[in-house]
Amino acid sequence: MLTSSQRQLLRVISESGPLSRTVLAAAMGLSKATMSGIARDLIALGILHETETVYGQGRPSILLDLHPEGAFFVGISLLQDPGPIVLCDLNGKIIARKNMPLSRDPEVIAGGIAEALPRLLAGRPDVAEKLSSLGVALSGFVDEKQANCVQSTLLGWQDVPLAKIIRQKTGIETFIENDAKALAVSEKLFGIARDIQNFSVVSFGEGIGCAHFIRGKLYRGNHGGAGEIAHCTIEPDGPPCRCGKRGCLDTVASIKAIKEMSKAGSLSCTSLAELEQEASAGNVVAVRILHRAGGALGLAIAHLIQFNDPGMVLITHVEGNFHGLLGTVVREAIEANVLPRYAGQTPVRTQRIDGDIWARGAASIAAHNFLIGPNPN
Amino acid sequence: MLTSSQRQLLRVISESGPLSRTVLAAAMGLSKATMSGIARDLIALGILHETETVYGQGRPSILLDLHPEGAFFVGISLLQDPGPIVLCDLNGKIIARKNMPLSRDPEVIAGGIAEALPRLLAGRPDVAEKLSSLGVALSGFVDEKQANCVQSTLLGWQDVPLAKIIRQKTGIETFIENDAKALAVSEKLFGIARDIQNFSVVSFGEGIGCAHFIRGKLYRGNHGGAGEIAHCTIEPDGPPCRCGKRGCLDTVASIKAIKEMSKAGSLSCTSLAELEQEASAGNVVAVRILHRAGGALGLAIAHLIQFNDPGMVLITHVEGNFHGLLGTVVREAIEANVLPRYAGQTPVRTQRIDGDIWARGAASIAAHNFLIGPNPN
Repeated sequence: MLTSSQRQLLRVISESGPLSRTVLAAAMGLSKATMSGIARDLIALGILHETETVYGQGRPSILLDLHPEGAFFVGISLLQDPGPIVLCDLNGKIIARKNMPLSRDPEVIAGGIAEALPRLLAGRPDVAEKLSSLGVALSGFVDEKQANCVQSTLLGWQDVPLAKIIRQKTGIETFIENDAKALAVSEKLFGIARDIQNFSVVSFGEGIGCAHFIRGKLYRGNHGGAGEIAHCTIEPDGPPCRCGKRGCLDTVASIKAIKEMSKAGSLSCTSLAELEQEASAGNVVAVRILHRAGGALGLAIAHLIQFNDPGMVLITHVEGNFHGLLGTVVREAIEANVLPRYAGQTPVRTQRIDGDIWARGAASIAAHNFLIGPNPN
Repeated sequence: MLTSSQRQLLRVISESGPLSRTVLAAAMGLSKATMSGIARDLIALGILHETETVYGQGRPSILLDLHPEGAFFVGISLLQDPGPIVLCDLNGKIIARKNMPLSRDPEVIAGGIAEALPRLLAGRPDVAEKLSSLGVALSGFVDEKQANCVQSTLLGWQDVPLAKIIRQKTGIETFIENDAKALAVSEKLFGIARDIQNFSVVSFGEGIGCAHFIRGKLYRGNHGGAGEIAHCTIEPDGPPCRCGKRGCLDTVASIKAIKEMSKAGSLSCTSLAELEQEASAGNVVAVRILHRAGGALGLAIAHLIQFNDPGMVLITHVEGNFHGLLGTVVREAIEANVLPRYAGQTPVRTQRIDGDIWARGAASIAAHNFLIGPNPN
């Protein structure tokens, strides 16, 4: 367990990258002596190390950075079957991965993890010794202690104390988190949002997820519901949604919805890429579906910008490059629906992700708890 | 200028109301001796005072509270002409008010304030001595230093350093703020949001404003645009808006829009109250207008709940009681457009406000800077 000043130092480096002792002391508002003492302890713990020496004006300075092998984390995604289980270092780099079968039974999941762990750590006693904790990403609502799954439609769960069940089976401290929130934490700790205080991640896949960082911290909202854009009404009187209302973003803009619309339009496409191909070949039905989905997703993101004015919106997607018709329509719909004086001022980035990214996101929840501490609202 | 631990203590009391030294020490994570020292200094400054003695188990304890006359603040609203200028105490109570003519010329405004101040303070030398600072509420964008008006359509301004101009004319430290944001700060410091960390204010009037508090602090967003719900597209392909796009919430749900729709519908109503009367008498055009406006406002608030999951939404309104058709439709539209499992879980409160509330909001910006310090993002 790290002290709060140790964590403050780790947080600064985690946001800024390698820094000299002088710059660190200034950033933390501490004397250089006090700061150096904190750094010394973290170096002794193997979490921090000295990296390159920078020669500039005055004395050359040595930069301090996180030691990639200072601690290790396991991440598991419950979003696909088989579920990936990965081992990450303190830079968020995946250094080993295995698969494990997915189940809806929490005990079976915990058993699967306990069974997969020795395979994951095989031949690396040094890693096993420095294994800090374990994170799980799932589709659903998670409480702010990152311990209980409040509700998951995909898994059919209601109030499942998953972290406790896994800890009992594996002996390893465990944190669980909603998939989009885990992805946002991962982008903040290790990805393109490192130095951005306010940003939102919109994950575009079979379903649509969203999570906000506000003032450098994950914002869960009052009931953990912040970021539930999938069920904002984007087409009033639109298609019925499994949630009970109509016209939810999820019913017109998720990949699941796009596939269903393709089927209803008698298209034989089984993927977004194929649909994009049909559209670029001039198929009017395909064009219409991509316009509808992209227009809805873009409008929802425009609302996000109008409501919260984030410093960046990151759209993650599992397929294609987002430069086809869908991506174009999304971008146009965003621009057309934000206040013109703000149009183009909010960077909208896109990033292709694969299945392992969710497991890495899960590991980053564990890393966040280790480096920075728990993240209640 | 107060120290940060003095401000921490004032913040705790401002959120919780009167507290004993024991409870305060626990809340601040300080020893009772350290806390008592801080309280002693604040009592000597006249900002804190001992109030009632509470008899419970153990020794009776004396409660500490803000001294209402510990400091005074002036607030000015630039939303109406004549503009109210009020004097508030440390409880946010208006203890004097005057009117001053409104102008679009910042120098004339500053001159008007300088001229009104002696009238406002007449016969109260004790107040003049403890006058801390001055706040101004306006319709438009304000920078995070609460010093410059970045843009105001109502006032026709672009980059006006209003705080500096007023300070030069009056000699009093000045802070300016967007009207809805000032109102939110006022509700947090003095109103019904005192103990709520995450909430949003939606001000329904000639225009529509909105501001968010997140983790107990005003959240401005990256360009000061957080809360700009007036220009979210609520009716795609709807009526043209002065901002350049179509179907903005402002074009169908503001009182201005409601009056215009009434006129277009050949109704003679000049106020929302009259329109409500027409509707309850069965006038179909009036019913339709109120449904359209209420549905749009409710949908936007539902988006707000889906996106941010606040602990409360406070709707302020300038007319009527919000229990007529409009209020009913707003409430129904909120419930119909939030995820059913969350329906009814976000308290939606309504509050009638008068013109002085904006001036009090402005004073609360000054009080916030005095009590808690500046509020950058």
